[in-house]
Amino acid sequence: MTPQTLKAHIEALGQEARAASRHVARASTASKNRALQLAAAALRRDQSILLEANQADLASARSAGQDAAFLDRLTLSPASIESMAAGLEQIASLQDPVGELTGLARRPSGIEVGRMRVPLGVIAIIYEARPNVTADAAGLCLKSGNACILRGGSEALRSNQIIARAMHEGLRGAGLPETVIQVLDITDRAAVGELITLKGLVDVIVPRGGKSLIERISNDARIPVIKHLDGVCHTYVDASADIAMAIRVADNAKTQRYGTCNTMETLLVHEAIAPALLPPLCALYLDKGVELRGDDAAQRLVGGIKPAVEADWYAEYLAPILAIRIVPSLEAAMDHIARYGSQHTDAIITNDWNNANRFLREVDSSSVMVNASTRFADGFEYGLGAEIGISTDKLHARGPVGLEGLTNQKFVVLGSGQIRGG
Amino acid sequence: MTPQTLKAHIEALGQEARAASRHVARASTASKNRALQLAAAALRRDQSILLEANQADLASARSAGQDAAFLDRLTLSPASIESMAAGLEQIASLQDPVGELTGLARRPSGIEVGRMRVPLGVIAIIYEARPNVTADAAGLCLKSGNACILRGGSEALRSNQIIARAMHEGLRGAGLPETVIQVLDITDRAAVGELITLKGLVDVIVPRGGKSLIERISNDARIPVIKHLDGVCHTYVDASADIAMAIRVADNAKTQRYGTCNTMETLLVHEAIAPALLPPLCALYLDKGVELRGDDAAQRLVGGIKPAVEADWYAEYLAPILAIRIVPSLEAAMDHIARYGSQHTDAIITNDWNNANRFLREVDSSSVMVNASTRFADGFEYGLGAEIGISTDKLHARGPVGLEGLTNQKFVVLGSGQIRGG
Repeated sequence: MTPQTLKAHIEALGQEARAASRHVARASTASKNRALQLAAAALRRDQSILLEANQADLASARSAGQDAAFLDRLTLSPASIESMAAGLEQIASLQDPVGELTGLARRPSGIEVGRMRVPLGVIAIIYEARPNVTADAAGLCLKSGNACILRGGSEALRSNQIIARAMHEGLRGAGLPETVIQVLDITDRAAVGELITLKGLVDVIVPRGGKSLIERISNDARIPVIKHLDGVCHTYVDASADIAMAIRVADNAKTQRYGTCNTMETLLVHEAIAPALLPPLCALYLDKGVELRGDDAAQRLVGGIKPAVEADWYAEYLAPILAIRIVPSLEAAMDHIARYGSQHTDAIITNDWNNANRFLREVDSSSVMVNASTRFADGFEYGLGAEIGISTDKLHARGPVGLEGLTNQKFVVLGSGQIRGG
Repeated sequence: MTPQTLKAHIEALGQEARAASRHVARASTASKNRALQLAAAALRRDQSILLEANQADLASARSAGQDAAFLDRLTLSPASIESMAAGLEQIASLQDPVGELTGLARRPSGIEVGRMRVPLGVIAIIYEARPNVTADAAGLCLKSGNACILRGGSEALRSNQIIARAMHEGLRGAGLPETVIQVLDITDRAAVGELITLKGLVDVIVPRGGKSLIERISNDARIPVIKHLDGVCHTYVDASADIAMAIRVADNAKTQRYGTCNTMETLLVHEAIAPALLPPLCALYLDKGVELRGDDAAQRLVGGIKPAVEADWYAEYLAPILAIRIVPSLEAAMDHIARYGSQHTDAIITNDWNNANRFLREVDSSSVMVNASTRFADGFEYGLGAEIGISTDKLHARGPVGLEGLTNQKFVVLGSGQIRGG
């Protein structure tokens, strides 16, 4: 495909999506839910066809020398297909955010002004070779009244096409245009470059994947990006903390799962509580095979802690490694978080009301917690129903992005013939 | 100044702003209000010094050959200085958006999850040689808990520095760091290029000015931009409209002020009402010296309408010119708006409940109105108290951006030792 043909093809896709976005924006809740339910049924019915396509994807990926973790993410099973279908039904059960009218109030001029929740328009989602994301992302975009263009890793293309076929069957059955959900079938990497510069046709880009993918896309995009960079999450144990609670929560924040973005990567401990807290807590970590890297003070208190270097405070390990620093005060803990953190999720363990409040107000992260595990930073745990990702941006949605994050509010003005200056 | 020195200077400014943003984010409402009130008093006291600086700015601008409109925007008077001071006091009287906690609800895990309104951080405002924007923008950023870097047109630098001095006096008197408000004093254009790529130090850019300035900045920025592009605003007169109301509102929408972004630029009229509506309405426009450009059907109904060409439907005239098109249906009107509009402000004049609702829901503009003049699209008219601009973006704030648009919400989680999967 020449660069010109490619550009024209992507632009045509964008035009189709733009046109479809007007249809789906005004679609009734019932028809969107029906499309989701029909798609779920089609996925279940076509399980064996999807598994076959997935086998072909896996065979190509294997012969291309992809590693075990890659193949694992690519692999579908009867259970994962069932969970995809159930996920679509669960999205159907969520409240429709579109059309909600809030804050309507009469102004001195006589007009009434309020805000109405509306879809964003066309969302491009760029992700790795994980076919389950296809159903999940398409379902969330549909329910929130958006058209979407999905560009998954090319190694999953056969699987994604079968999933898209099920979604299209659902759309057709509900009387909605199939172009509400489009899968970009060009494996050429240049296609992504065209997609993320499709100004006027694509409204927002949601990249999902590793940090390098996300950084590349946000650097090159000419369209707003909802992005999730690192999760360098902290737990600060205040002087006043309950030691048993601090141990339980800090253990969970690090060891419940090592590879997630809301896993604690640095533990900050007030110097007054460190002698009582660190020995039992570190014994627990070392028992579970967590490598500990600490400052001098931490090393003096507990054997088996290796020296931390400056880079450790910035690190998102996503592994059984934990950085530990002893701090003289709440302020020092918040300074550390402001300097080294990634504004994802940070928690304080404390019994001091004032310190809890200061931490909640002053730590500028998308999730700030008191006496809870950072592992709770998640759309399901927060009651959003589902999430398309976690945003570490300062504008628009911060934290887990659910249906509401895929919408925005416009102003509505209701009048009875009012004129300005009249 | 070498490019390296310039870069280092801007970076230092950004570092100062980042540090100051943590102070102002946690500042009490009382201290922010005190800073605003003291700054207002300082502006009034220093009126003659400010007028003198402004005279010097005007002299340079005149000798540089700037035109009358430019000089007009640059000129300060005792009245405009008083209105600047009063504006700061008015911002002090607005409710502080920071810290508001909403939606706190208990989840099955036992944690309570809610959202807290927080400042964006560091805001860079880039604008033309209009010194009144300096006080206005600085005041809004301060009240919303943000640090700001102001870069006004270099022709206003002397005036801006005196205004900044008054703001700094207010900050000092309230115990806040002066670096909360910084005026970029480098007139070299390259400084803007450095400022809008200061990732990690500047959180958001708000350009204010002509479309070319805004397009250039959003193309070059590597930081999110809250932007206001064109206002190609429509009024659609439905078949069911009250003719007297339609005439009153459509007249106001076009002729109350010609040069504002919320002025109607295209009038769409249902074919069933056009014969009754257009002759009296067009007579009114022609009386006021408005040039009318219409499609064939409109020209057949009224003499004195010139032929419209395709470019007229896209035009933001900002002048006494109006495009008129006759349409066969509500759908055709909405199709026209979707195709040619700029998603700024669009209104329907109708007595049909169903058509009003469809227009409100389906027209994807930042303000959508029923039976009211598009001229109402304004922060003061909407009750926001003040506005830093009007956003035509799809993400974050849409429409007039007040204090709330300069903030965002983070998640807060209140626990009592909860762990995930526990």
